[in-house]
Amino acid sequence: MTQALLTLNAGSSSIKFALFPLAASIARRPALSGQIESLGAGNGARMSAVDDAGTSLIDRPLPGGTDHHQALEFLLRWLSSHSALKLAAVGHRVVHGGEHYREPVLLDETNLAELTKLIPLAPLHQPHNLDAIRALQRLEPGLPQVACFDTAFHRSQPELAQLFALPRQLTEQGIRRYGFHGLSYEYIAEVLPEHLGKAADGRVIVLHLGNGASMCAMRERRSIATSMGFTALDGLMMGTRCGNLDPGVLLYLIEQQGMDSHALTRLLYQESGLLGVSGISSDMRELLASDRPEAKQAVDLFCYRIGRELGSLAAALGGVDAMIFTGGIGEHAAAVRAEVCRAARWLGVELDAVANLATNSATNSATSTASVARISAAASAVAALVVPTNEEWMIARHTARLLQ
Amino acid sequence: MTQALLTLNAGSSSIKFALFPLAASIARRPALSGQIESLGAGNGARMSAVDDAGTSLIDRPLPGGTDHHQALEFLLRWLSSHSALKLAAVGHRVVHGGEHYREPVLLDETNLAELTKLIPLAPLHQPHNLDAIRALQRLEPGLPQVACFDTAFHRSQPELAQLFALPRQLTEQGIRRYGFHGLSYEYIAEVLPEHLGKAADGRVIVLHLGNGASMCAMRERRSIATSMGFTALDGLMMGTRCGNLDPGVLLYLIEQQGMDSHALTRLLYQESGLLGVSGISSDMRELLASDRPEAKQAVDLFCYRIGRELGSLAAALGGVDAMIFTGGIGEHAAAVRAEVCRAARWLGVELDAVANLATNSATNSATSTASVARISAAASAVAALVVPTNEEWMIARHTARLLQ
Repeated sequence: MTQALLTLNAGSSSIKFALFPLAASIARRPALSGQIESLGAGNGARMSAVDDAGTSLIDRPLPGGTDHHQALEFLLRWLSSHSALKLAAVGHRVVHGGEHYREPVLLDETNLAELTKLIPLAPLHQPHNLDAIRALQRLEPGLPQVACFDTAFHRSQPELAQLFALPRQLTEQGIRRYGFHGLSYEYIAEVLPEHLGKAADGRVIVLHLGNGASMCAMRERRSIATSMGFTALDGLMMGTRCGNLDPGVLLYLIEQQGMDSHALTRLLYQESGLLGVSGISSDMRELLASDRPEAKQAVDLFCYRIGRELGSLAAALGGVDAMIFTGGIGEHAAAVRAEVCRAARWLGVELDAVANLATNSATNSATSTASVARISAAASAVAALVVPTNEEWMIARHTARLLQ
Repeated sequence: MTQALLTLNAGSSSIKFALFPLAASIARRPALSGQIESLGAGNGARMSAVDDAGTSLIDRPLPGGTDHHQALEFLLRWLSSHSALKLAAVGHRVVHGGEHYREPVLLDETNLAELTKLIPLAPLHQPHNLDAIRALQRLEPGLPQVACFDTAFHRSQPELAQLFALPRQLTEQGIRRYGFHGLSYEYIAEVLPEHLGKAADGRVIVLHLGNGASMCAMRERRSIATSMGFTALDGLMMGTRCGNLDPGVLLYLIEQQGMDSHALTRLLYQESGLLGVSGISSDMRELLASDRPEAKQAVDLFCYRIGRELGSLAAALGGVDAMIFTGGIGEHAAAVRAEVCRAARWLGVELDAVANLATNSATNSATSTASVARISAAASAVAALVVPTNEEWMIARHTARLLQ
């Protein structure tokens, strides 16, 4: 019986999973992948999965009141009955590895205890990641589990890129810029030589634009700087998150409007960004399809802030050789890419408008499989590419390596 | 008897003043200038003033317990007895003019009431500015008074540069990027053609680096973007202020360390920046003179953040034609200018190291009068200049204009 690696991304209301056959070289496309959504919601959870050809394998509601533990139990039972693959290990996406974890680890009680101590640094995500690990320990004792961190890729940054201008003792307590989306950036760094050759080791800015969004400046395919900071709130404007914000705004909202940290957390994580500015939606597709001026302003601001951050990251690199678009918006929203490339013309980017429109366009994103494409003109001094990300494959690869 | 204009900058513990003879063309150097310091401090206040040759006219303690009102009363009496100039009007530096005040105004009860409503936007500064105006109304009823705003120069910015990615109703309530140091930037914009000719109307980035620090991107000598935001806390690292900070850090400090808004205000306004990172001093001269690694790190971080912001503002302009250093650090700290120009090489800046070292160097700043100097090499694609600022002259000019 062939062995397999399960990758898990456990969030507050969903669990995403993928199954990769264990082999000397892990295939980029999983044998099956899917998600359990709406966990904890009133209407009950729902599980869906597709095989590597995109054919539906399951799409059904789970019993009302299904919690994360029961969902994982159901998933393991379903996998063992619907797949000829036997689990060799599980790899988890874990949001926070702090300063210490510069690469993935095989989990044991010691490092699990250390990761638990990091919960205050990511209270909205870390508990769910760790709960899934604990649940699997109970369901499958002895099954090796690996943690892959969203922060690890950025630990190569120079110290100055990681510091806030706060008193030293706060920095020593861990209040520093960690950066996130590290598995996505690591994937891009891994495959970039296939598309750019030697230029992959030059000055590259990767734009991970999804519902969460950040950018990463790389040199020699290592992180030099990133837009996200201590939390996933900082940097770019996102679907519902504010991004970069004057800390004085929080002081004002506390003192003048009597808001407490819970109200601020809701405001800045869930009610801001594209949703807050447009008043319409957090979904870029909906905003691009709308003719209301508020929708246009939200999209324009999203692109404007990316343009400003491009300059800031180019400064960290001393210029730019290539720009890579990835993530849901980066892969599918041609209009956003066009506007960002227009804003980046001063850096030497020249768009191939036809190639851009032809690449993974938003209108058929539900059915198309995103593919790598060059969207810069032949004469462009800076290469611009669309490279679909594949965080699950990175997790599977790290897990396979740590099993050896 | 010749008439004169008094300019006032009233802060929490000090009042700075200058006296300019009223003429068709206001001289750039005041007839006299000085300050009343340590108001409200235990040891009592102290007043000092010099004439236009730098000769001391007064330097003495004021009676213990002197408050702002008494200090202004003393100042007016002293001026009338020590100067042959008769006051025609007073011009005030007022930190906040909100969205509405795009230029200076002759004060009346209507606009004073409006400016009072802006106190929540700048609770640390606006009350002191307005108190000085009210005190002069009582001391010299009928004397015309003018308010010149630190925010006004930035109202030319495109809407996107002024927006946070927050819900629309918060933007409509006035939570937007105002920008500050406007009188300094306006002065630079005013005199720049004398030094750059037509290039003054190109893409210019002004670095106002003092105990407070910000940067402004100008095109056609109008503000296009700036590093400060809703408050004077945002943007660059400063003497004791944090500058740019992930809003998630505030949420963490509230939830995990139980800090309230007063503790956060003290931390972010008074204990961060150069002082917080070095643990030594907020004074750039002291840090540059120190051989301790913490001092070096604080200076390095100060310069690094300026370098990143240069990229961000260059993006707002689509490139840079000139960089202008001003403010106490910008005018006197040659080492900081050298490091910033090094970080800006990718933008086309090439430093003339000899000219830079010869310009208003920190060691003789107490005695030298700062002068305009070009510090970029002849072959530099981007001009780099040191231009000492003169906010008082801008205030005097605006005041003279509004008297007509």
